[in-house]
Amino acid sequence: MEIGIIGSGAVGLLSAAYLSKYHEVTLYTRRKEQAGLINDSGITLVRGDCREKITNNLRAEDSPSYKEPLLIVTVKQYQLDSIFDALKTSPSKMVLFLQNGMDHIPLLQTLKGHRIFVGTVEHGALKLSDNSVKHTGLGCIKVSPLYSEDRLKELPILQMQMEHFPFEYVRGWNEMMSRKLLVNACINPLTALLRVPNGELASNPMYNKMTESVFHEAVKVLAFQKGQEEWEHVMDICRNTAQNRSSMLKDIEEGRKTEIDGIIGFLINQAKAEKLEVPVLHFLYQAIRGMEG
Amino acid sequence: MEIGIIGSGAVGLLSAAYLSKYHEVTLYTRRKEQAGLINDSGITLVRGDCREKITNNLRAEDSPSYKEPLLIVTVKQYQLDSIFDALKTSPSKMVLFLQNGMDHIPLLQTLKGHRIFVGTVEHGALKLSDNSVKHTGLGCIKVSPLYSEDRLKELPILQMQMEHFPFEYVRGWNEMMSRKLLVNACINPLTALLRVPNGELASNPMYNKMTESVFHEAVKVLAFQKGQEEWEHVMDICRNTAQNRSSMLKDIEEGRKTEIDGIIGFLINQAKAEKLEVPVLHFLYQAIRGMEG
Repeated sequence: MEIGIIGSGAVGLLSAAYLSKYHEVTLYTRRKEQAGLINDSGITLVRGDCREKITNNLRAEDSPSYKEPLLIVTVKQYQLDSIFDALKTSPSKMVLFLQNGMDHIPLLQTLKGHRIFVGTVEHGALKLSDNSVKHTGLGCIKVSPLYSEDRLKELPILQMQMEHFPFEYVRGWNEMMSRKLLVNACINPLTALLRVPNGELASNPMYNKMTESVFHEAVKVLAFQKGQEEWEHVMDICRNTAQNRSSMLKDIEEGRKTEIDGIIGFLINQAKAEKLEVPVLHFLYQAIRGMEG
Repeated sequence: MEIGIIGSGAVGLLSAAYLSKYHEVTLYTRRKEQAGLINDSGITLVRGDCREKITNNLRAEDSPSYKEPLLIVTVKQYQLDSIFDALKTSPSKMVLFLQNGMDHIPLLQTLKGHRIFVGTVEHGALKLSDNSVKHTGLGCIKVSPLYSEDRLKELPILQMQMEHFPFEYVRGWNEMMSRKLLVNACINPLTALLRVPNGELASNPMYNKMTESVFHEAVKVLAFQKGQEEWEHVMDICRNTAQNRSSMLKDIEEGRKTEIDGIIGFLINQAKAEKLEVPVLHFLYQAIRGMEG
């Protein structure tokens, strides 16, 4: 089928490269040059020692026509506004949103007339250039419908599974998104603040205590029952991605805006609504916002 | 009179350079090479455009004989142990301790048979080399007796005041040290964590909020009455030393141990004794300890 992928960062490039093996993919970029480059030279996908140049079933476009019946939105949460505007006047589509954080969920709920899915990306991906991406960690994309009447099996990407790019069906978006949010809340801002790779949050005893403080405040806000299990999950991710520099660390290093609002900002707003004290989350939020300059 | 200055960092070099204009100064260094260099070439004192080479009344020694009737101790707090050991068996002296933090005060109170004074250094000083120091900020050294029966006027350095290196008499060491501790607690660890010069804690609105959180927890522990006045004092120092990199930031940058135990560690212990919650101080303590590696 025809799939439109909106956003051409690491996740957008990775999704376009894999999905174009079975579908007609249009990748929507912001910059004309990037679209031109991809149309001329395709996308290079690097996985381990394997380099693959992908040109079939793949084209790029820099104007937001969004004509395809399935759209996968991979931009950062704070870049969603113009996409929402386009979707408001568009015919009914399936739209899969792959943002970190949960701040955008209420906005998604205002999008009428579409079948909305949300997902969490559990791949490691590194954008090497405007048309090359490295698949640094094999994982999956978990997908859940925002409304239970939109059954997941309707999503065509779930019907044809690829070895290195699987999609996983999840019931209940809230738990799925909360779990990913918890991981992001524990790992991303701290690695950015301390300027360390993920592994140090497990291996440096002092950084580990800081991670625990963030974890405890976040778990309280998200009202998770199985605290110990979640903590082990966060630590497993730190250890399994020990050498990785988190996306927020990269954002800070490269002087970009971060996703702090969607992650820690969301938790702070939830805490306020539930009248919970989260002093460490406030402190961490201010640090990252201050570093964004 | 004869004065022994123990410790040859920025404050030790600065004190030796100025005090040798009126007194016989022995500067105690840890390293033989530094003592040799100073005995051969004196100390170069830089103040604004003025460079002064000081050789008269000044000698350096690397063995801890501590014979002088007045000792000024300028080493870091965590380096005090061997000096305490030497003082325990020494004839009665006047000893002025110039450490940051307050963790060492209980130990000072175990030193019997000496007249003990404590002081806070409000000069800006930068060690340029083993025998040169830059006086970057003209301030004073505040001095107070640890026991009220040891009247301050007995301290000979208070009787002969120098324009650029004044000493100031203060009644009540506790308030004097607490005030300095509060300033250090607000400025040093945050500038080290965020790797910014002092001024950013006033000028960056987010960093300013972080400073406020640290301030509020510290003020609660120290039980200061005039909160607003103290906050203005901290902000004045940030603005007046806007370009300065704090000593803790320099320690982190140069891979040295910091004074975090004497500053934030002290506050955390006090908070524990007073059953106060100080989550931000814990978080900040762990960050700096983690950064020390």
